[in-house]
Amino acid sequence: MTIGIGLLGLGTVGAGVAGILATPEGRHPLVAELALRRVAVRDLSRPRPLDLDPALLTTDAEAVVDDPAVDLVVEVMGGLEPARSLILRAIAAGKPVVTANKAVIARYGDEIAAAAAARGVYVLIEAAVGGGIPIIEPLKQSLGSNRIQRVSGIINGTTNYILSRMASEGAAYGDVLADAQRLGYAEADPAADVEGGDAADKIAILAGLAYGGAIERAQIPTEGIHRLEARDVDYADQLGFAVKLLAVAQHVGTATDGTAELDVSVNPTLVPRDHPLAGVHGVNNAILVEGDPVGRVMFYGPGAGAGPTASAVVADILNIAGIRAATAGSSAEGTPQLDPLLAASRWRPCRLAAAGATVKRNYVRLQTSDEAGVIGKIGSCFGAEAISIRSIVQFEGQEGQAEIVVLTHEVPEDRFRAALAAIAALKEVKAIAASLRTL
Amino acid sequence: MTIGIGLLGLGTVGAGVAGILATPEGRHPLVAELALRRVAVRDLSRPRPLDLDPALLTTDAEAVVDDPAVDLVVEVMGGLEPARSLILRAIAAGKPVVTANKAVIARYGDEIAAAAAARGVYVLIEAAVGGGIPIIEPLKQSLGSNRIQRVSGIINGTTNYILSRMASEGAAYGDVLADAQRLGYAEADPAADVEGGDAADKIAILAGLAYGGAIERAQIPTEGIHRLEARDVDYADQLGFAVKLLAVAQHVGTATDGTAELDVSVNPTLVPRDHPLAGVHGVNNAILVEGDPVGRVMFYGPGAGAGPTASAVVADILNIAGIRAATAGSSAEGTPQLDPLLAASRWRPCRLAAAGATVKRNYVRLQTSDEAGVIGKIGSCFGAEAISIRSIVQFEGQEGQAEIVVLTHEVPEDRFRAALAAIAALKEVKAIAASLRTL
Repeated sequence: MTIGIGLLGLGTVGAGVAGILATPEGRHPLVAELALRRVAVRDLSRPRPLDLDPALLTTDAEAVVDDPAVDLVVEVMGGLEPARSLILRAIAAGKPVVTANKAVIARYGDEIAAAAAARGVYVLIEAAVGGGIPIIEPLKQSLGSNRIQRVSGIINGTTNYILSRMASEGAAYGDVLADAQRLGYAEADPAADVEGGDAADKIAILAGLAYGGAIERAQIPTEGIHRLEARDVDYADQLGFAVKLLAVAQHVGTATDGTAELDVSVNPTLVPRDHPLAGVHGVNNAILVEGDPVGRVMFYGPGAGAGPTASAVVADILNIAGIRAATAGSSAEGTPQLDPLLAASRWRPCRLAAAGATVKRNYVRLQTSDEAGVIGKIGSCFGAEAISIRSIVQFEGQEGQAEIVVLTHEVPEDRFRAALAAIAALKEVKAIAASLRTL
Repeated sequence: MTIGIGLLGLGTVGAGVAGILATPEGRHPLVAELALRRVAVRDLSRPRPLDLDPALLTTDAEAVVDDPAVDLVVEVMGGLEPARSLILRAIAAGKPVVTANKAVIARYGDEIAAAAAARGVYVLIEAAVGGGIPIIEPLKQSLGSNRIQRVSGIINGTTNYILSRMASEGAAYGDVLADAQRLGYAEADPAADVEGGDAADKIAILAGLAYGGAIERAQIPTEGIHRLEARDVDYADQLGFAVKLLAVAQHVGTATDGTAELDVSVNPTLVPRDHPLAGVHGVNNAILVEGDPVGRVMFYGPGAGAGPTASAVVADILNIAGIRAATAGSSAEGTPQLDPLLAASRWRPCRLAAAGATVKRNYVRLQTSDEAGVIGKIGSCFGAEAISIRSIVQFEGQEGQAEIVVLTHEVPEDRFRAALAAIAALKEVKAIAASLRTL
């Protein structure tokens, strides 16, 4: 049973997908049943890295979606529009969609999911998070028996590459970023990566799958690595930690109406050196899922790149082909029934918890005058908010200044902020030079 | 749509499954649709760790399978018989099966799969490998677009616990084993774990899924850790490696008739310290899958235990419930259609490659007389078989003896064996004290 594929976009991922479809030997036999029928590109005259019948190409993306020979639409063009409209158009036509577009899913996932549910079609998104790492399907299909407690991920390869090099070379952020741009690991405009927005898109998607309901993407507290100093990476190392940009979605409670309250955020975070996430280097990604009763499971691999991402896109297509085989010959009336696991049907409301309800461990670096009694005053500010301190270490400062690093135990976010405000007001404290999270 | 569950076995895993079914709150809502209808136990009078209606219990396992209120059979009793017969009985009755029984699946997987395909029911086995780690479903549903090149796994927690302690404490195998038995990490009869049979069962299952066809479980070359000496762990460490019991299934070629030729084996293996598998400690498991175009992805987590294993069992039940929802109302005639991915339908013949077709890197430790020229003679033996040597290091031996460790580059297995035979015949060589693999 051949399935006609319409491809929206023929960049690196699109070309990777076309490459897999053109070489089915040695792959699952369902790959041979996929036929590329139409490809939307921006510019017909651009040279292509693969051998593709020019008659397949068009600049009219809507014509690809509408083509009666196209049974399934693959959206790998990226960007918010026209990607969102084309996905909705495919759904309206009763055609399942596979997309790698994390930005669209993080922002319009609910609209798209509602349209897909109403029309009885699947919209699959394995490639949107973690590149080639199977993480979306396992969250949907392998961990549903658990009460998920926390999802923590290194889900942006660019920042992990930069952090890995800052750690191994003691280099400054700006220098490594420039080098990463030269090598193609960072974009000319690196903001979405280094300021944490890309990781926030992805953790919004993972949280929705792990906890069963959507959260507001725009409300996720997001801090990038663009203000991180080499000395914090160095101090962290001396204290036994690696610094990673972690995206975390934690279950903090259940409201009386059953709404799951989540603490979702993106932060540069100190990870203990023996923690599984501390060993994830370079452009690799890893996602740690903690649940009851499974404990801790981790998914690791290449977080980006044409091959890995195309692997995930075609895996999604195969899942749709597989379930189509199981329902072939079915003559049920009305809207097609969906597998609620594969469709990732929402099953409970979720929302971000108030700052008072969230607890975190913290790393704070203070620049202070180098005089006796400073540590005592800082300690008192934390004590006044009943914040338990794990360690205070004084590092060598410059010219009559001291650098004091404080690690706290778990503290409510609002009390921590109150203590920081009191510390900032001390006359001996010149600056709160850094405030990071720790695991 | 309630699904009646019949449970065969109420040991730690069975009790874990019953515990999840009894507490659906906060889990995927499909869990609430699963109703435990009948439980087969060996001894009705044994006290149970959980609160279960005694009327559910019976010692008649066949009655559980046959009970019309049971829609799906969960086999967690272990052992070959009566487990195999009960699984086949459930299939014959048109009831899907979820099993954690790696021994049965590794030995009778083909018989069971054929019966299941003919009857149109699913037999799911996520819990059979890697405990709570999602690995079976990802191999089936997330990596089918790849040509799998290699699957390498630390898939026996007992041996990994022993090896981790041998490495960190420099302790002898026998001492750590005795301690592991005392702590409950190793069985009173540890043979299946320490001699590699359990890992061989599991790699047979993973190979079948990764490459699409069954291989003969009995033919898998299997070496355990029971003859491993502390000094080899120490030498490996000095050379930059961790020693792990690795189960590997590698694609080495395709015969003219399309049969995939595989190198499948279980061996204590030197893993470079910066390799992702080297950091897997204690009772954890990890499986690394390498494919084109995905690259390297790794799955990590608790490889055993009631909670993790029960998580995987219930995940399988949910998958059956999910696809049942998608096919509900279907009025297709005849044998029910299966999703070929979820059902893991076989798609090509596979067989073990001949020793001449497989290549491996090796670690050899020789006890020799301490005299000049020995290293030259050993080197000549390897040279005569055109084996490229990576390093030869002489360690301090006892009383006029030397210990020489040779690391080879990749060499065909038959030539390596020929060289070892020639070396053993040298009068200066007292013993080939250890022969391990390296990654």
